[in-house]
Amino acid sequence: MIIVMQKRAAEEQVNRVFERIKALGYKPHPIYGVERTVIGAIGDERGKVRLQSLESMPGVEKVVPILQPFKLAGRELKKDPTIIEVEDVRIGGDRFVVIAGPCSVENREQILQTAAAVKKAGAKLLRGGAFKPRTSPYSFQGLQEEGLHLLAQAREETGLPVVTEVLAPEDVPLVAQYADILQIGARNMMNFVLLKRVGHIDKPVLLKRGMMATVKELLMSAEYIISEGNQQVILCERGIRTFEEYTRNTLDLSAVPMLKQLSHLPVIVDPSHGCGVRSLVAPMAKAAVAAGADGLMIEVHPHPQDAYSDGPQSLPPDEFERLMHQLKGYVTLEGRHL
Amino acid sequence: MIIVMQKRAAEEQVNRVFERIKALGYKPHPIYGVERTVIGAIGDERGKVRLQSLESMPGVEKVVPILQPFKLAGRELKKDPTIIEVEDVRIGGDRFVVIAGPCSVENREQILQTAAAVKKAGAKLLRGGAFKPRTSPYSFQGLQEEGLHLLAQAREETGLPVVTEVLAPEDVPLVAQYADILQIGARNMMNFVLLKRVGHIDKPVLLKRGMMATVKELLMSAEYIISEGNQQVILCERGIRTFEEYTRNTLDLSAVPMLKQLSHLPVIVDPSHGCGVRSLVAPMAKAAVAAGADGLMIEVHPHPQDAYSDGPQSLPPDEFERLMHQLKGYVTLEGRHL
Amino acid sequence: MIIVMQKRAAEEQVNRVFERIKALGYKPHPIYGVERTVIGAIGDERGKVRLQSLESMPGVEKVVPILQPFKLAGRELKKDPTIIEVEDVRIGGDRFVVIAGPCSVENREQILQTAAAVKKAGAKLLRGGAFKPRTSPYSFQGLQEEGLHLLAQAREETGLPVVTEVLAPEDVPLVAQYADILQIGARNMMNFVLLKRVGHIDKPVLLKRGMMATVKELLMSAEYIISEGNQQVILCERGIRTFEEYTRNTLDLSAVPMLKQLSHLPVIVDPSHGCGVRSLVAPMAKAAVAAGADGLMIEVHPHPQDAYSDGPQSLPPDEFERLMHQLKGYVTLEGRHL
Amino acid sequence: MIIVMQKRAAEEQVNRVFERIKALGYKPHPIYGVERTVIGAIGDERGKVRLQSLESMPGVEKVVPILQPFKLAGRELKKDPTIIEVEDVRIGGDRFVVIAGPCSVENREQILQTAAAVKKAGAKLLRGGAFKPRTSPYSFQGLQEEGLHLLAQAREETGLPVVTEVLAPEDVPLVAQYADILQIGARNMMNFVLLKRVGHIDKPVLLKRGMMATVKELLMSAEYIISEGNQQVILCERGIRTFEEYTRNTLDLSAVPMLKQLSHLPVIVDPSHGCGVRSLVAPMAKAAVAAGADGLMIEVHPHPQDAYSDGPQSLPPDEFERLMHQLKGYVTLEGRHL
Repeated sequence: MIIVMQKRAAEEQVNRVFERIKALGYKPHPIYGVERTVIGAIGDERGKVRLQSLESMPGVEKVVPILQPFKLAGRELKKDPTIIEVEDVRIGGDRFVVIAGPCSVENREQILQTAAAVKKAGAKLLRGGAFKPRTSPYSFQGLQEEGLHLLAQAREETGLPVVTEVLAPEDVPLVAQYADILQIGARNMMNFVLLKRVGHIDKPVLLKRGMMATVKELLMSAEYIISEGNQQVILCERGIRTFEEYTRNTLDLSAVPMLKQLSHLPVIVDPSHGCGVRSLVAPMAKAAVAAGADGLMIEVHPHPQDAYSDGPQSLPPDEFERLMHQLKGYVTLEGRHL
Repeated sequence: MIIVMQKRAAEEQVNRVFERIKALGYKPHPIYGVERTVIGAIGDERGKVRLQSLESMPGVEKVVPILQPFKLAGRELKKDPTIIEVEDVRIGGDRFVVIAGPCSVENREQILQTAAAVKKAGAKLLRGGAFKPRTSPYSFQGLQEEGLHLLAQAREETGLPVVTEVLAPEDVPLVAQYADILQIGARNMMNFVLLKRVGHIDKPVLLKRGMMATVKELLMSAEYIISEGNQQVILCERGIRTFEEYTRNTLDLSAVPMLKQLSHLPVIVDPSHGCGVRSLVAPMAKAAVAAGADGLMIEVHPHPQDAYSDGPQSLPPDEFERLMHQLKGYVTLEGRHL
Repeated sequence: MIIVMQKRAAEEQVNRVFERIKALGYKPHPIYGVERTVIGAIGDERGKVRLQSLESMPGVEKVVPILQPFKLAGRELKKDPTIIEVEDVRIGGDRFVVIAGPCSVENREQILQTAAAVKKAGAKLLRGGAFKPRTSPYSFQGLQEEGLHLLAQAREETGLPVVTEVLAPEDVPLVAQYADILQIGARNMMNFVLLKRVGHIDKPVLLKRGMMATVKELLMSAEYIISEGNQQVILCERGIRTFEEYTRNTLDLSAVPMLKQLSHLPVIVDPSHGCGVRSLVAPMAKAAVAAGADGLMIEVHPHPQDAYSDGPQSLPPDEFERLMHQLKGYVTLEGRHL
Repeated sequence: MIIVMQKRAAEEQVNRVFERIKALGYKPHPIYGVERTVIGAIGDERGKVRLQSLESMPGVEKVVPILQPFKLAGRELKKDPTIIEVEDVRIGGDRFVVIAGPCSVENREQILQTAAAVKKAGAKLLRGGAFKPRTSPYSFQGLQEEGLHLLAQAREETGLPVVTEVLAPEDVPLVAQYADILQIGARNMMNFVLLKRVGHIDKPVLLKRGMMATVKELLMSAEYIISEGNQQVILCERGIRTFEEYTRNTLDLSAVPMLKQLSHLPVIVDPSHGCGVRSLVAPMAKAAVAAGADGLMIEVHPHPQDAYSDGPQSLPPDEFERLMHQLKGYVTLEGRHL
């Protein structure tokens, strides 16, 4: 932490800041500048957030943090990339993984048909929502536990491991019973109770970036999960909220190389939610590969115009198959294989 | 819903949209324009969100919703303002209510001292966090149940009803046992499981606007609570995230008159979180009164420089007392009284 | 400037940074922390922006500026508030000033009628656009020089000094011939050529905050004008772009007390553009007074439904008169008078 | 335009809206819904913006535009892509074009050395700023006309056509004398006077997206240039402002396929400004190719740590050369060649 004193700060004020830094267990180190004094606080980084309260002291202009607040999710302590294994699928290594399926599980036929189609096209995991977070209480809220049953059937029939979202801390054991990977949705990225709970299970967690979250905040949420003991975290960029009106969100692909530099965790991209517009899914999927992503999550529905949710951004199976074909070249260029 | 066809949409495509609208239970009504056809879908508004999927049909350019998606939280069905009563405090009527207290309950002395001070200055409710949502797992997470006990003691000593945050759906019964008003924090505004759960209790809920939420989304979250049966919802503007760097958030005071026009629910303002800077709390508190708010929530700490959290934005008791004095004139001008 | 070295930075890398700091004329001052080294660069603040390039050096993690980049617009060098005099109107002192008029000058009758009405209601200056920046080339672009003539007539008839926008650097002399205050619009806040040009005239400049500008950037744009020699700058908050959809912009009233603390320049608020919705203008105007603004700029049109531009946010004369009445109490509470 | 009446709108209010629509030259077409009446206004799209003022009429809730406001920049009137030719370079066809060079022209040696290096690596055009828009008046403002001379020398020595920014309308003839392509910077995207001026020259214009501009606004700014007669417009995505702190801006690659779908104009990407961080330039450059861009603009400086501006985001020549190598595969996959 760097404590910046005001231009006119009295010597006595500087001294009181010194004492307070010491009282909190840090060593003050002053730099006497031309216009003002700044003070470095030296010591263990973990608790330094307490020093922020020094902003309240007379004569202090601001307190500037210097270090990254995440440790376990960061590259500094663990240099080699984390690889997450689900059955025979490896996420984060030299394979490029595609997760596909409908927004919501709607009925038996829909999910089985989709699962078969995405498997045939080359997807390695099946996605499908059973518990749906919807902004309106009058929208379809998902088939709940019945949806989990149907996902299990789809897995049995196709062999594809299943990714599905968990909304409530108390549902974690139930969902973990059915799912191979538990998804934390964008709206729950800062649901710290839920993060801690999935930190206690031994299944991988796919953590989606919140709509207004910074890269740092995403990594802090991953830190919550890891610090509870679960190191199997997959980060997912899915678009942030901007003032753009043509797209549902703005897919921030620069987060991909940034996250890969800052963290050892695998990073996947969801261009379906990220754009919200079907015709943008394919170009942005290719771009995600080129930006260095470890995988994609793509919404596929046998009949998008009948979908209970997210129809406008879902690909029909034939378009998805064409996209999988197109991706191959880009994946190869990145030194990976599908 | 208005379905806008593409400029070159074939007659057959228009016909298929007609049929689909009818299949979903609505009546299509076309307008044949100079450049393109638009089709109104007439019928019950509740389920119209299903029509959004028509965007997937060939020839459709976009689907434009016409009506507000909230009903129970809106002014259209309930014209008179909702007044919420907690002991002898009334929120939403001609009284202007100030809620004050520390960010976190830290220890017995701190909370009792603050409670006594804010009561003396004229606050009608005590705030204090026992369960704290912190972006870092290494930050102080609150005293949890012990914090609830201390709040209960403070209530007993001062007679001030207590507002405190609940983070987990499963903690709702516990927190409801101690708190007079349950707070849903900004990070949980879209935690729909939690919203539904507090929709089942018979205590008022203070719902904070999410950092990136629109006014419409805030009202949809209120709709979740009310549609489960709990009509005692207080809306709270607490700042949204923008690119401004001098303030922690940007307090959106225009949300106050907008919410009062759209909804019958009381609206309060939290300038402490909204600005994150102590010197802005007083001017923005006065401005909130003038913008038509029904109350304020203000962070007060006996020694801000020692606060475990939010020190830089907390007022010491004497500054809070001065502010309460200043507010009187503005409250009177608004035809209310403190 | 504080240069933060990477955790694993080699001693040699630190040394090269030292040398580079010295080569640029500053004195390096290291702090050897537990995890990494940070280096303060001591010396004249003006040119320190050059030090930013050190981020390119091996071993450097980031370069953090410590001081405000504005000098002439800031409070540090000039403590007493700047008061701007236009005829007998004083902006920035204990008077509260209201500027009113139509978005665009449309014709003789419209501007004369509006001028008479706003004068009668208590406005001290007349606004009206002759050169209009419109997002569409097909929208009404203003009456141009004819509009300036009409404004001059309105001034002659009512005695109200006139505020009008200048769009092009080469139009500055023409506009300055007619206007008492030249307005720089939000879209031109970073039109540095235009800023420099109005820095050379001896008429006051009303500088509107850009739609995406931070408070710091607004002050830097003021700095451009003042550093060219014109110290008569009035700052104007007029709403920033957010993701809110009910309002045209989000009026950032917290910018008012923030600007008053950081700068000696007068600050006015434009709630008409800030909200874009007529029913929000009055509450936000009152709130602006309470937040400490030195004045208001309000759009008034004799027949808003016929306005060439900004009809939905313009007040008809009777509503404006009611608002002026309402404002009095708030202005008095702030220790000012209308 | 669709005029949405309020729920309780009286028949008389609906009638008055009818009359007003007719008075403005349009044909009203009502849809009587279950909850409210909506009215379509049929007629020539160009002037429909006038209908927005109907929002001021009693009983009207809102006015919703249905059509895109751009015509000449859009795909509807001109289906085939615009190809812009500069000497023997073609932008917008099956060639993928890389523009490279320093942020600012600093001196003769720097610009000649960079020009030679980027040509050798495969760049087809040279960029370099002579007039620099800087947020601080104390920052380096560019070599001005001397910079133009140096660019001309670099062109003579290397044969590379030159792209450089013009800031002031009155400088357009001077800059057009030296430059092969005139750049309009992000801060001037809504400088409509400047847009009109470059609409009168017969040299291509590279139009950068404003930091807070939507895709629609970018196309409206292109519409300004084209509607004045200059059809040679190149659109450039260069990052928008978000709340992300690790990057200078957030590069919005989804704008690329969106712009290609909406418009016939070529689209290039500037990952240097878009990210502001050197290590992100290469991955985002590759991603831009995959997203369908027609070219790239990349900052290269012989000694980034000595750069007068943008050092942290500039590539040294050897890194640029490596990037050009890497790009080849991606460009080929897109069916283009460098």
